[in-house]
Amino acid sequence: MAEAEVRGARGRGRGGGGAARRAARSAVSVETARFIERNIPDFELLNAEALELIEHNAERVLEEIGVNFVENPAALDRWRAAGADVQGERVRLPRGLARQLCATAPARFTQHARNPERNVEIGGRSLVLAPVYGPPFVRDLDGGRRYATIEDFRRFVRLGYMSKWLHHSGGTVCEPTDIPVNKRHLDMLLAHMTLSDKPFMGSVTEPSRARDSVEMCEVLFGKDFVAENAVMTSLINVNSPLTFDSTMMGALEVYAAANQACILSPFIVGGAMAPVSVAGTLTQVLAEVMAGVAYSQLVRPGAPMIFGAFVTSIDMNSGAPTFGTPEASQILFGAGQLARRMGLPFRSGGGLCGSKLPDAQAAYETANTLNAALLAGVNFMLHACGWLEGGLVASVEKFVMDADQLGALHKMARGVALDEEAQAMTALQEVGPGGHFLGCAHTQAHFKDAFWRSDLLDYKPFETWDEEGARDTATLASARAQKLLSQYQQPALDEGLREALESYVARRKAEMPDAFV
Amino acid sequence: MAEAEVRGARGRGRGGGGAARRAARSAVSVETARFIERNIPDFELLNAEALELIEHNAERVLEEIGVNFVENPAALDRWRAAGADVQGERVRLPRGLARQLCATAPARFTQHARNPERNVEIGGRSLVLAPVYGPPFVRDLDGGRRYATIEDFRRFVRLGYMSKWLHHSGGTVCEPTDIPVNKRHLDMLLAHMTLSDKPFMGSVTEPSRARDSVEMCEVLFGKDFVAENAVMTSLINVNSPLTFDSTMMGALEVYAAANQACILSPFIVGGAMAPVSVAGTLTQVLAEVMAGVAYSQLVRPGAPMIFGAFVTSIDMNSGAPTFGTPEASQILFGAGQLARRMGLPFRSGGGLCGSKLPDAQAAYETANTLNAALLAGVNFMLHACGWLEGGLVASVEKFVMDADQLGALHKMARGVALDEEAQAMTALQEVGPGGHFLGCAHTQAHFKDAFWRSDLLDYKPFETWDEEGARDTATLASARAQKLLSQYQQPALDEGLREALESYVARRKAEMPDAFV
Repeated sequence: MAEAEVRGARGRGRGGGGAARRAARSAVSVETARFIERNIPDFELLNAEALELIEHNAERVLEEIGVNFVENPAALDRWRAAGADVQGERVRLPRGLARQLCATAPARFTQHARNPERNVEIGGRSLVLAPVYGPPFVRDLDGGRRYATIEDFRRFVRLGYMSKWLHHSGGTVCEPTDIPVNKRHLDMLLAHMTLSDKPFMGSVTEPSRARDSVEMCEVLFGKDFVAENAVMTSLINVNSPLTFDSTMMGALEVYAAANQACILSPFIVGGAMAPVSVAGTLTQVLAEVMAGVAYSQLVRPGAPMIFGAFVTSIDMNSGAPTFGTPEASQILFGAGQLARRMGLPFRSGGGLCGSKLPDAQAAYETANTLNAALLAGVNFMLHACGWLEGGLVASVEKFVMDADQLGALHKMARGVALDEEAQAMTALQEVGPGGHFLGCAHTQAHFKDAFWRSDLLDYKPFETWDEEGARDTATLASARAQKLLSQYQQPALDEGLREALESYVARRKAEMPDAFV
Repeated sequence: MAEAEVRGARGRGRGGGGAARRAARSAVSVETARFIERNIPDFELLNAEALELIEHNAERVLEEIGVNFVENPAALDRWRAAGADVQGERVRLPRGLARQLCATAPARFTQHARNPERNVEIGGRSLVLAPVYGPPFVRDLDGGRRYATIEDFRRFVRLGYMSKWLHHSGGTVCEPTDIPVNKRHLDMLLAHMTLSDKPFMGSVTEPSRARDSVEMCEVLFGKDFVAENAVMTSLINVNSPLTFDSTMMGALEVYAAANQACILSPFIVGGAMAPVSVAGTLTQVLAEVMAGVAYSQLVRPGAPMIFGAFVTSIDMNSGAPTFGTPEASQILFGAGQLARRMGLPFRSGGGLCGSKLPDAQAAYETANTLNAALLAGVNFMLHACGWLEGGLVASVEKFVMDADQLGALHKMARGVALDEEAQAMTALQEVGPGGHFLGCAHTQAHFKDAFWRSDLLDYKPFETWDEEGARDTATLASARAQKLLSQYQQPALDEGLREALESYVARRKAEMPDAFV
């Protein structure tokens, strides 16, 4: 019935006698689940007619309205050569051109980690989970809300490494605001490369930082390996509506030329950066992704690309972005369908919420998003854990809480076993009317793997829970984060490689004056 | 794009000038949303082959293992007459008999409320939301956790009446433990009938209490009306595995004979009352529902029945039932498919959770269940709000928090509009690359209805929220509950009817000695 789903870095076994079990319980856990391979259908919210209408309208947007490639003459040259109508910075694409160019992007690719056990497959039926990206603030129960530092960043990388259900180390898990803006990427990459052995993301805030990212990967993985394989998946946001700025496109150009993967992701607060309707927003998302992915294939045909969509709704009273809302879920379902029809891997957000605290609001909104993303067929879920306050805050407790819920996604995605053991007819016959199943042979054989079990949530009797301090989820999560961090052991890395990475960082830092804006 | 979905008891309009709008804002809200009619597909987790296998196995269970009808000679007689093999209390059903008997149960029926505006349709594409059922304890921020009283019960009925997204007043919203066990049902029904005008559930704890429920409805609705129409939907639990006790069956017999609706609901903690596998549990659920619904049709062909499933997983470490788990969702999806194939309305739980507090655990588990139930095609959702601590506790704050989330289900179920306005091509053309949509004509025309908006959750800027006390969701919910209760006005009821109901209650109480067990 069950699959061996979790694998240890050192292949630690699960069997053995009492002493071995005690030892296993006290051993440091560095288990990481394999990326999810869905054995359940996707939820098809829109019918074929609706999808064709949206595709038709997206082609109209590209042909009649067009997109702007800003301060990027080389991009305009590429578009002209490909047959687009270029007027100033406006690029209009004849119907069908974008889709035709997108066809060279692979439907599925492998992102390699320095520990090959941690490689992830992106596309098809897979789902890869990566942590929060981008917050300038951090929050924890002890220290409250404050600007993030590089030490916070390293703490989140360690937590991510210790999180069993997280497949990916992510990118800017928080902004290390104590490091100059133009040097942060070096310290962030060094942390991902040395404190974790999971796959990670590159820098996109300047083309030169993307180049640094590629060069650091060449040190870590070897130049030939990087030329042939995706070792980074990086986040390229569209400046919605319909605008591709030279910073993000510059980073995309570096990565595509180096055959490294990018997520081409419209960043939309609905009603502000896109029309106030689901169908209109999906039309714009599709047009933007088609234009961006098509452009990546002009830079290098075959460069791995992900169809991204970061779309939230807006509270029209306050202007605040809102998360976990029905409109956001509808857009997620629809965008997943559009991505599948393009044959591209699909990326969404994960544990999105607007709450200031890791409270019930945070959990409702997060669970709404996680459930929708699983059924929408997402292949790469960014912000799967740790996101708080609309992405302004990376929360230690929420990181641990969400990371625990990700275990439920693994089990859900596994689908329903239907073999003879799973049918359990012998159990039904053995127990019969009025009996109970706790002691029957079938239950004894399968209870360990039968039900997903949280490593965090409270399942205790009321009296025990009350005596132990009546702790809420955030308090339990704080304790679990401290435990995970206290058990953390840095994954082994060749000393020569470490020194080479550190010296690359030192050299690049020495070449630049500090910049803080 | 939008539908007029919420209707007021007095048909209060939404337009008018500034003064009218201010008056409307300060007026007491007694709006209630119409029951949901889904305009989205169901999520089909299992394929036809899997469903046929489970149906085949369920027939084997009924034929080879059978079910027990305990201390109920009349039921055994009915089964014998219908062609079952009856040995002692064991009833074995030849393949196909149960399904054939179930065919007379209607696919859809109307449950009438005393205010016809609040009538609900149960079955087909509809979804009716009802509050928590059964907790002996209540909890609120002010008073903590304590045994429930009739005053608590009345408070929850008032809150349910004031909750816009709740269509149904429910049944035992909490156990009024200060009233004798044999008289509670009278006070509970009186509260539902007089403090609310939404539909409600009858008593099932004794056949005589079911008769009292029918008689009180005859007072409220008139005897002829009750004979022709469903005015109660009551909850009949199966004593799983495969056992139908005389108390519950006695209540079912009363309701079916009176043409009143029942939910036939296996009550299963997986691994204890059913096999430890999803497929085995679905097999047992189907067998139990088929036997119970078939029996109802032996009592009265055409009696309205709902395919129920209350199934949770178990924590095999502590033995505690667990909620919002992937296995529970899988069973929900599968049971919904089995119910649709039987042509019966389907009932699930809603805001289920195991947490002791209305915290993040409660919200994760609840949202997991609510989302699964919506997509599983549930027609009648019990425990949609207020459930805490595995159903031991009815929580005031959680009632308000969940009831707010139910608004999101309404919007999600509405589906995606695709008319010309919704396509928003004019907005895309008007705004163009680099613009913004906040001020465009399309946004101005549609922003009020474009996005679901919580009436509870915090959408404020951090600084405002912090200055206002950095309140978490439970604290906001406590304030909202107090506000709703302070605005509560009892719905009008004919004075003669009220007196007749009160005198029925007084007479029945006088006829019985108090019983506390």
